[in-house]
Amino acid sequence: MSGRRIVVIGSGAAGMSAASEAKRADPEAAVTVITEDSDIAYSPCAIPWVFEGRTTWDALVMHDAAFYGKERGIEVVTETSVSAVDGEKRSVTAGDREYAYDALVIATGSTVFVPPIEGKDLENVYTIKTVRDGKRLEQALKDARHVVIGGAGVIGLEAAVALRNAGKEVTVIEMMDQAIPRIADPDMAAMVQEHLESAGIRFVMKAPIQKVNGTGKAESVTAAGTDYPADVVIFATGVRADLRIPRMLELDIGQLNAVVTAPNMQVYRRGRLVPGVFAAGDVVQCQSSVVSGPTMSQLGSTAVKQGLVAGRCAAGKPASFGATASPWVCSLEGIEIGGTGMSAGLASWYGMTPVSGKTTGLTRARYYPGGTPMTVKLLADPASHRIVGAQIVAGEDVTGRINWLTSVINEGVTAEDFAVRAENAYCPPTNMVRDTVLAAADDLLKNIEG
Amino acid sequence: MSGRRIVVIGSGAAGMSAASEAKRADPEAAVTVITEDSDIAYSPCAIPWVFEGRTTWDALVMHDAAFYGKERGIEVVTETSVSAVDGEKRSVTAGDREYAYDALVIATGSTVFVPPIEGKDLENVYTIKTVRDGKRLEQALKDARHVVIGGAGVIGLEAAVALRNAGKEVTVIEMMDQAIPRIADPDMAAMVQEHLESAGIRFVMKAPIQKVNGTGKAESVTAAGTDYPADVVIFATGVRADLRIPRMLELDIGQLNAVVTAPNMQVYRRGRLVPGVFAAGDVVQCQSSVVSGPTMSQLGSTAVKQGLVAGRCAAGKPASFGATASPWVCSLEGIEIGGTGMSAGLASWYGMTPVSGKTTGLTRARYYPGGTPMTVKLLADPASHRIVGAQIVAGEDVTGRINWLTSVINEGVTAEDFAVRAENAYCPPTNMVRDTVLAAADDLLKNIEG
Repeated sequence: MSGRRIVVIGSGAAGMSAASEAKRADPEAAVTVITEDSDIAYSPCAIPWVFEGRTTWDALVMHDAAFYGKERGIEVVTETSVSAVDGEKRSVTAGDREYAYDALVIATGSTVFVPPIEGKDLENVYTIKTVRDGKRLEQALKDARHVVIGGAGVIGLEAAVALRNAGKEVTVIEMMDQAIPRIADPDMAAMVQEHLESAGIRFVMKAPIQKVNGTGKAESVTAAGTDYPADVVIFATGVRADLRIPRMLELDIGQLNAVVTAPNMQVYRRGRLVPGVFAAGDVVQCQSSVVSGPTMSQLGSTAVKQGLVAGRCAAGKPASFGATASPWVCSLEGIEIGGTGMSAGLASWYGMTPVSGKTTGLTRARYYPGGTPMTVKLLADPASHRIVGAQIVAGEDVTGRINWLTSVINEGVTAEDFAVRAENAYCPPTNMVRDTVLAAADDLLKNIEG
Repeated sequence: MSGRRIVVIGSGAAGMSAASEAKRADPEAAVTVITEDSDIAYSPCAIPWVFEGRTTWDALVMHDAAFYGKERGIEVVTETSVSAVDGEKRSVTAGDREYAYDALVIATGSTVFVPPIEGKDLENVYTIKTVRDGKRLEQALKDARHVVIGGAGVIGLEAAVALRNAGKEVTVIEMMDQAIPRIADPDMAAMVQEHLESAGIRFVMKAPIQKVNGTGKAESVTAAGTDYPADVVIFATGVRADLRIPRMLELDIGQLNAVVTAPNMQVYRRGRLVPGVFAAGDVVQCQSSVVSGPTMSQLGSTAVKQGLVAGRCAAGKPASFGATASPWVCSLEGIEIGGTGMSAGLASWYGMTPVSGKTTGLTRARYYPGGTPMTVKLLADPASHRIVGAQIVAGEDVTGRINWLTSVINEGVTAEDFAVRAENAYCPPTNMVRDTVLAAADDLLKNIEG
């Protein structure tokens, strides 16, 4: 093939989306993906569901390298580490080969941050990021009774539910004084924590993990001075952008410690755009849609969206990522929580005390069986009255509403305009005649006026 | 009480919302609701679900007149017909009383249109609009085997599913060549019809009902020259604004044969706003959010929204209804269909051939059990590229997405901006990593460009 040579480093959501979109946009291009992973094109978000038996490792991995080669005309080089990138020469060295590129997409993702404490390298101490991690953990879990999860973020909670469902004694240890810190408000997170506690998961809050104890193998975890038995320890303590490759190219790293990107996902070196080099996914920082300035949006859905833009631009076609409200949702056995835009806590970092509106309704008509409570919280900027954040807790149907409020945030709609212009469809089995989102907007408006 | 006197005529969704909001906005006001109905504050949309035993008549009716009197300080006069309204004197005569008003809200709703055919007044020929209708129909259904439903709109289909679930032989007879005509596109409606046919419901299309046959009682229905056995006939052939009261006041009736309203739901007489008189719900026409000009939005959710505005304005507080995309959704035993804005058919009446985008995905991640296909269709104005309509068919989770697309339509977002600015939350149990709505937007954009 004599077309454009496009190299993608990384085979996660961002990398595989970029590769596929680049090939779609320019079928003549020679597209190569280089990855350290052995499995590709799977959703790491799905790993917890394997532990409780809802799905299998095989089902998780959608396509293998051979499929991409044969069906999509994309070369995927697995289990291969990139040893050098030469920006001048435009080439990537990986394994014993050199790959020349016209366009490069860096989608190297992130690594789980494990606090630098004593015992963190003992056997039976895990992170969950790849299918490889997951399979190793699965082995260790076989004989485990007590599992300690470090971190009550969404990944930690999903793992906690899965392992509780698999019959383990689960203790979640969190440094902050609330679950899902940073992105959820304490009142919303408390509903989830309560639900999970009633399902038998133990929470230890405001307790930084100090030490993993054991000889060879983990036996217990010390947090805030107390020991908790642990046959297996899982760290779900957040992720950090993996900057090894960006540093090889001396790309600009921003204040959030991730690769700085332009709207087309192009990267910078010393303040200038680097021709032909793009980045996408957990490795980048990008524009926030609620504040002037960058944000991290380390979500699978964002990675796909950025990957599509990076791939298209790498193929020489126009595309733009825009700005992100970073919508997220987490389903936890009978309760779902989702959010978008800023939480009250995040807003306070910017010196903003948002006005809030909050209402609890139902997911179905009052008289229709099977519904659950639904609590919607909306946050508005007290100066502009723009809606800047939303969170929902309910037994069902959170995702569509979070996407709804994400568009509202991204379009810059004020509370007043939302109250006038938003509408809801209605059917007794699917919601209330005045959707709880609109009822929460009524409350928000009252609090803005009052 | 020496406060403002507010009279509301009608106790449906619009009337009761107006009354409650008026009292909330001005607790000193004397609020009176006058209604011909015996039951108040119920959702007529729920009636089909009683027939299949999912809920009860008692559960349907949320509050009675005594509750409103005692708990909300609102007088509700039931089973009472308004015989005169004097706009000059500002008084309503009903039963043997005269009610003076400072502000009047007309929420008289609509009546089911029954085609003027032979046999329409036979016994066992019904419409479903009130709990009273429903209870009468319930009696008649006891010994019925064959039920013919005239009209394949959402009400007709909901009734068909309920009665099929209750063990009846159900035939739906529709004049047009598709189910859910006018508001759904043929391709989307066909998926629903196919699903219902496989559940044992018979459809007879392009067949205007000519006659109900029987002596005293309905025995069969003739449509397009063929006879269909019918122990019970239900007409679900659309509704018409009930203009009896508006005509007493000589209010302006618009081109859609409904009461013309301003954004605050105030009414007109000979082109001038009538001070203190408002209307809401099925009786009005209001501004469309997708075309310049009026639309009918005869939906429970719209009635509530308009009722809140009318009630607030009747109490002397500011409020505005804005414009409507008339979002709707219909849940039919394993399949849901919803829409918002214009259908392709409706657009064609305005001389517009919309560009469309359509994608079928899943309601959950591919490997997560329990998901169903989800088809999303988006329509854009070929001139401005504004998104003007959307329809979704899936086994679950349609409502939140229809509300999402309603805000997108009402904010005037173009296909290009939507593709850049919209985002989705993601969790394997609740959607795909790229939500099917965004995938449909990709297809729409491709069709706009191509």
